[in-house]
Amino acid sequence: MYDCLQSDFDHFTIDAMPLQFTISARCKRSEARVGRIETPHGGFDTPAFMPVGTRGTLRGLTPAQVVGTGSQIVLNNAYHLMLRPGDELIGRRGGVQKFMRWDGPILTDSGGYQAFSMADINAIDDDGVTFKSIIDGSRIRLTPERSIQVQNNLGADIIMAFDDCPPACNDAPDAQRLAKANDRTVRWLERCVKAHARPDEQALFGIVQGGTDPAMRQKSAEDICNIVLPGYAIGGVAVGEGSELIRKVTEFTAPLLPLEKPRYLMGVGYERDIVAAVRAGVDMFDCVLPTRNGRNANIFTKNGRLHLRNAKHAEDDSVIEPGCDCEACAGGFTRAYLRHLFISKEMLGPILASLHNIRHFQRLLLDIQRAIRDDAWSCLHRSWPVLDVAVDRQVTSGEDDDQLLQRT
Amino acid sequence: MYDCLQSDFDHFTIDAMPLQFTISARCKRSEARVGRIETPHGGFDTPAFMPVGTRGTLRGLTPAQVVGTGSQIVLNNAYHLMLRPGDELIGRRGGVQKFMRWDGPILTDSGGYQAFSMADINAIDDDGVTFKSIIDGSRIRLTPERSIQVQNNLGADIIMAFDDCPPACNDAPDAQRLAKANDRTVRWLERCVKAHARPDEQALFGIVQGGTDPAMRQKSAEDICNIVLPGYAIGGVAVGEGSELIRKVTEFTAPLLPLEKPRYLMGVGYERDIVAAVRAGVDMFDCVLPTRNGRNANIFTKNGRLHLRNAKHAEDDSVIEPGCDCEACAGGFTRAYLRHLFISKEMLGPILASLHNIRHFQRLLLDIQRAIRDDAWSCLHRSWPVLDVAVDRQVTSGEDDDQLLQRT
Repeated sequence: MYDCLQSDFDHFTIDAMPLQFTISARCKRSEARVGRIETPHGGFDTPAFMPVGTRGTLRGLTPAQVVGTGSQIVLNNAYHLMLRPGDELIGRRGGVQKFMRWDGPILTDSGGYQAFSMADINAIDDDGVTFKSIIDGSRIRLTPERSIQVQNNLGADIIMAFDDCPPACNDAPDAQRLAKANDRTVRWLERCVKAHARPDEQALFGIVQGGTDPAMRQKSAEDICNIVLPGYAIGGVAVGEGSELIRKVTEFTAPLLPLEKPRYLMGVGYERDIVAAVRAGVDMFDCVLPTRNGRNANIFTKNGRLHLRNAKHAEDDSVIEPGCDCEACAGGFTRAYLRHLFISKEMLGPILASLHNIRHFQRLLLDIQRAIRDDAWSCLHRSWPVLDVAVDRQVTSGEDDDQLLQRT
Repeated sequence: MYDCLQSDFDHFTIDAMPLQFTISARCKRSEARVGRIETPHGGFDTPAFMPVGTRGTLRGLTPAQVVGTGSQIVLNNAYHLMLRPGDELIGRRGGVQKFMRWDGPILTDSGGYQAFSMADINAIDDDGVTFKSIIDGSRIRLTPERSIQVQNNLGADIIMAFDDCPPACNDAPDAQRLAKANDRTVRWLERCVKAHARPDEQALFGIVQGGTDPAMRQKSAEDICNIVLPGYAIGGVAVGEGSELIRKVTEFTAPLLPLEKPRYLMGVGYERDIVAAVRAGVDMFDCVLPTRNGRNANIFTKNGRLHLRNAKHAEDDSVIEPGCDCEACAGGFTRAYLRHLFISKEMLGPILASLHNIRHFQRLLLDIQRAIRDDAWSCLHRSWPVLDVAVDRQVTSGEDDDQLLQRT
């Protein structure tokens, strides 16, 4: 179904509806590659960064503003949209692209991560998970079949398998729990494939689990990749473990995924996590950091982060980051003005900060693509000093929801 | 100082820094006129509608989006900006236009209305008013001198006299209180003129008070217009009285103001209030309705208002108002999607609703300008059915602040 039309060693295309993946350049000194993925709603260049629009909107941004950040694909959370306004309602509207007026590709997650990450209010069994609705407290049942049905209704171009993703933080899973998760994840994937009603329109990606244990990762990758799919994801990372572990797991797992298919590292992350993962051969990323942090006045720059509520910005007439071409910096909005907006709880603060932060990540990905093409990694590091400093880590996976900050 | 260079009966220009007012057309059957006001930061066509950006931002909208609504001038509240971030801080930044990146004229109010409208926490005397800061509860003193100093620091193109504006609702002022307010208002205006440090850059408008009493209005207009200024405003309306009284006061007062100077009706209002005031000879309007109502899912259309949270919009695939050229309607955002945004408390709902509502008022003003030029009033009423239906009234003056809804 998804044939590899390899033209030469360096360039090949996976050409099969609903997804075509063309690799146009490969790194000389790492597994990194530059490519493009085409979907029924348009294409995007890889390595790609997907900002998160939890409820069918990137908080406070019009689709035109999101396009202006250079984002070519966005992520929506099936969990939130199934609860409100409901996946069937969105399906009747012609799908989530039409509903939110996003004229490009969309990826939806399966809803599993959200259901599991609220572990105090759910019950997991071999068939699926039962949880209380965050809207009205009602009992909701999510199974592989229901997750795919939800995602078929939402109609995103790339949909994700419903997997068992045990959290790494606080209550780190033991070997038995990891093995159980691996086993469930592959069985659930088989059920997802069977339930998938729109395989010619929506590309279903499988998800590799296995925690931080190499043997578990190996086993999961083998089991998952035995099922032929248009793409594969590395799940169960950025769920509370540190930067080093994210890197190790990614470097170990990415090469286990088919060379000619898109590889998606879920919920990662900070700039240097992304660079390390790209070098390990990852093509797609999503993360709530630019938007969630942006709403909290926490700003990403090439030199590190800054906090716009800080008093030292009160009379600072410089833009967030001189040289940045985002709507906030190019528009000349000063740190003094942005601080005023945040202190005054004015919506425009989060909006401009989100626009800058998303553009920050898109600029990073553009520079990474160039580094791969031109073998210009040292140049990348010179112009992105942040790649060589440690970061304060926080959970980065999941939905872009301020409530989550309180939960985690 | 402000000479009337009358070229013929119908067209004349007031040509004096910092404000030039050119009347280019006059209505054949009313006092209405079409014109243009030039300021140091650019011009705007009259009759003009000014949306309200209380804290140096129109809630959630970038300046580019505000320009997209057809707004040519915006209003800021001196009261809020003096408290936070401080008028001196904004002055050091080069003024409020530069601070908020608004590349056009700005008008600031004097701060008096806000100080008075929180009557439970202030004390008024013949010298000024003392009130508690809404930021930190500290004691703030506002006098004519201080108000003008604040507005000089903010640097708006049009600044307003510090006046005594007694509220009309609940605690309607008696004749004695009105006479006191008139007296104070003229004495305070003399002090404002004296205190005004930037008369060549900022046009100071006087404000006529007098409540709903014609004799009081007559006296106030005479006293205020005796002081030669680049423009005059009708204050003390839309402070709780009904539509009929607003209309009567405006129709009585507007002709008492100099024919060749801009006339500004403060805080008005609904569509038919605006049309009536234009016909009485008013040139400028401001109102919080489009933004404050928009944030509350309350939408203005040519046929009347609708509430986007209403369940009947849940599966409505039409835009807010077919034929509207605002960013929300032209962008194809459906009522179903907007309802979802409001129900989910997503910022994009208030943003798109504000964009539509502001554009609604700007389209009305454009059509009013055409009606004056082409004597096309019946055409105006045919295409704006809302002009012939009664409205639910609410206080429309003042700052654009959600807290105010709770106060009033």
